[in-house]
Amino acid sequence: MATTDQDDQLVTPWEVTAASQKGVDYDKLIKKFGSTKIEDSLIERIARLTGKPAHHLMRRGIIFSHRDVGLILDAYEKGKPFFLYTGRGPSSEAMHLGHLIPFVFTKYLQDVFDVPLVIQMTDDEKFLWKDMSVEEARRLASENAKDIIAFGFDKEKTSSPDFYKTILRVEKCVTVNQVKGIFGFNDSDCIGKISFPAIQAAPSFSCSFPQIFGGKKDIACLIPCAIDQDPYFRMTRDVAPRLGYPKPALLHSTFLPALQGAMTKMSASEASTSIYLTDSADDIRDKINKYAYSGGQSTVEEHRRVGGNVDVDVSYQYLTFFLEDDEKLAKIEKDYSSGAMLTGDLKKELISVVQQVVAEHQQRRQQVTEQMVQEFMTPRKLKYSS
Amino acid sequence: MATTDQDDQLVTPWEVTAASQKGVDYDKLIKKFGSTKIEDSLIERIARLTGKPAHHLMRRGIIFSHRDVGLILDAYEKGKPFFLYTGRGPSSEAMHLGHLIPFVFTKYLQDVFDVPLVIQMTDDEKFLWKDMSVEEARRLASENAKDIIAFGFDKEKTSSPDFYKTILRVEKCVTVNQVKGIFGFNDSDCIGKISFPAIQAAPSFSCSFPQIFGGKKDIACLIPCAIDQDPYFRMTRDVAPRLGYPKPALLHSTFLPALQGAMTKMSASEASTSIYLTDSADDIRDKINKYAYSGGQSTVEEHRRVGGNVDVDVSYQYLTFFLEDDEKLAKIEKDYSSGAMLTGDLKKELISVVQQVVAEHQQRRQQVTEQMVQEFMTPRKLKYSS
Repeated sequence: MATTDQDDQLVTPWEVTAASQKGVDYDKLIKKFGSTKIEDSLIERIARLTGKPAHHLMRRGIIFSHRDVGLILDAYEKGKPFFLYTGRGPSSEAMHLGHLIPFVFTKYLQDVFDVPLVIQMTDDEKFLWKDMSVEEARRLASENAKDIIAFGFDKEKTSSPDFYKTILRVEKCVTVNQVKGIFGFNDSDCIGKISFPAIQAAPSFSCSFPQIFGGKKDIACLIPCAIDQDPYFRMTRDVAPRLGYPKPALLHSTFLPALQGAMTKMSASEASTSIYLTDSADDIRDKINKYAYSGGQSTVEEHRRVGGNVDVDVSYQYLTFFLEDDEKLAKIEKDYSSGAMLTGDLKKELISVVQQVVAEHQQRRQQVTEQMVQEFMTPRKLKYSS
Repeated sequence: MATTDQDDQLVTPWEVTAASQKGVDYDKLIKKFGSTKIEDSLIERIARLTGKPAHHLMRRGIIFSHRDVGLILDAYEKGKPFFLYTGRGPSSEAMHLGHLIPFVFTKYLQDVFDVPLVIQMTDDEKFLWKDMSVEEARRLASENAKDIIAFGFDKEKTSSPDFYKTILRVEKCVTVNQVKGIFGFNDSDCIGKISFPAIQAAPSFSCSFPQIFGGKKDIACLIPCAIDQDPYFRMTRDVAPRLGYPKPALLHSTFLPALQGAMTKMSASEASTSIYLTDSADDIRDKINKYAYSGGQSTVEEHRRVGGNVDVDVSYQYLTFFLEDDEKLAKIEKDYSSGAMLTGDLKKELISVVQQVVAEHQQRRQQVTEQMVQEFMTPRKLKYSS
């Protein structure tokens, strides 16, 4: 699973590369991973069940793939609850735009379904994989926690219990052979990496905690995550029946492309590919103007004649993530493709949208106190019925 | 390290067998493990430094091997503190006589050196290796904690901090290749076993906790343990310099033989080999009379003529562990070897000694409250200067 396939695209929890400026071929990925493409009927069903419009990330195919979400909806329809699980591996002090996506989408899911949420901070993963001290990884987790708190999740329904017992149970079900097959580990890897997948798996089985649905083992878990995290949850789904839990369901998102283009994803460790949530309005303007890969033509005349290519244009791609107004987006696509809109104008549009997203986030983050972080980082009880 | 050597003796953290009724050849084990035999001069030095007589377990060669204890004593002589680390893997509700040994000896060390002690309960190990639920392993740990508390360790100087950060640090330093080499693991083992050695290693580095010597990283650790635990601490000693800690020193004990003879050690999971700390006076009498392997001759006449063999006689061996009176022990050895003492009389002597040891333990254990167990199982601060 961790090797480059014939199409020269590599998608693992630690690396994402594609040979084409169009980025990862997600249809091929669905086939390779064995997940299910999200059809319009599923999106309509969610809108119908929740009585709220489907999220634009779903409508636009950014949340593109899933596993067993139908089962979650079946249960929900019968009045049976479920819970959400998402997480964050804190690789840098400042989160970037791409990190917003799972939390924006998870916030929507918590709001429309009114369900508990478990958030796991995997600073342990970052310590094991990166050249970083435990203390530094923990500090980054605290900093990232402020950003997560800023999303305004229902505090009484959002927490992270102490998973050690569940981690042990998962560790006992998974062999070295299995993690080698799934993650491409080998005997030169440290033993921390070998056992880490059990840590990421464990919160999928949070329902057994008394504070979530009273400890009933048959409550399903729905995990919104980027598609690169799927290997962890394929393993988790294999283990689930042996531990007597339902398999967690998944909703997969695509990657927010790097500023330089969709051949890789935005990466916190490469500053020039990223717009950080700490960037100033001027930083955002400068980075987009300087780095955002353009699908436009090399001269104005040529552009007016041929038009821009939205399939590779990073600014347009970003708008699909962050501009909620469907009509406006459709007009931009039309005008840019026809050549009526120039790259400079498209970038100006994106700059204004991103500046607003980031400024609003910064405002909310400023309200986060150290005490809120302390509470967030400490396992505590969840309120599980409204 | 985990394979049977040419002498047909196998000593791993999970199995101990010897081909001879004399039991494990400990001199060969010292050579194989690369540890150091305890010389009289070391025993005398400990007596001199502490101003107390050396413990009978040391005087009689039951604590027989060590690593770097000289360095601990050098530091102690210069007024530099150290701390003790020992542990318990709770494999059954009732601990047996063999389990007493490390705690009896550790209690002596804490008393004469007046140093902090960290005790680790490895119910996680038992869960991973045995057919047992997490809850059952934890329950056994609580039960065993009562026995440990009954030893009367200085409560203010005995605890177990939360080791997760240290575990991660160790996990990052040790490869799959290394644990395969040291412990004989293979790719069919579960990932929990693969990473467990880091859990057992971590308390060796407890000195970095603020509550033990103010967080100074250069305070050494002394680990009293049975020799089968040495592989864990060989690994720990390899890792120590990379993490900037001193290598932990070790004091190794031999095994208390099974009732049936020294070809294996007393095992909690095989009831007929064991005297439990919960056994009644009658149980103890019956078990010793029925099972304790005798080095005596088959008829009284033969015994009077040839004498008994104390090297293989389990009752005599047990007296070396539990009868503190050196003169009395010497007389028993002389009389039994000469044939003046019969097996029945030797067993009668042992029965009385063991009944007293167990009855005293049961009395102390009865004083242990649930609150004391709760406190013991919860990480808390240590008092580290008297």
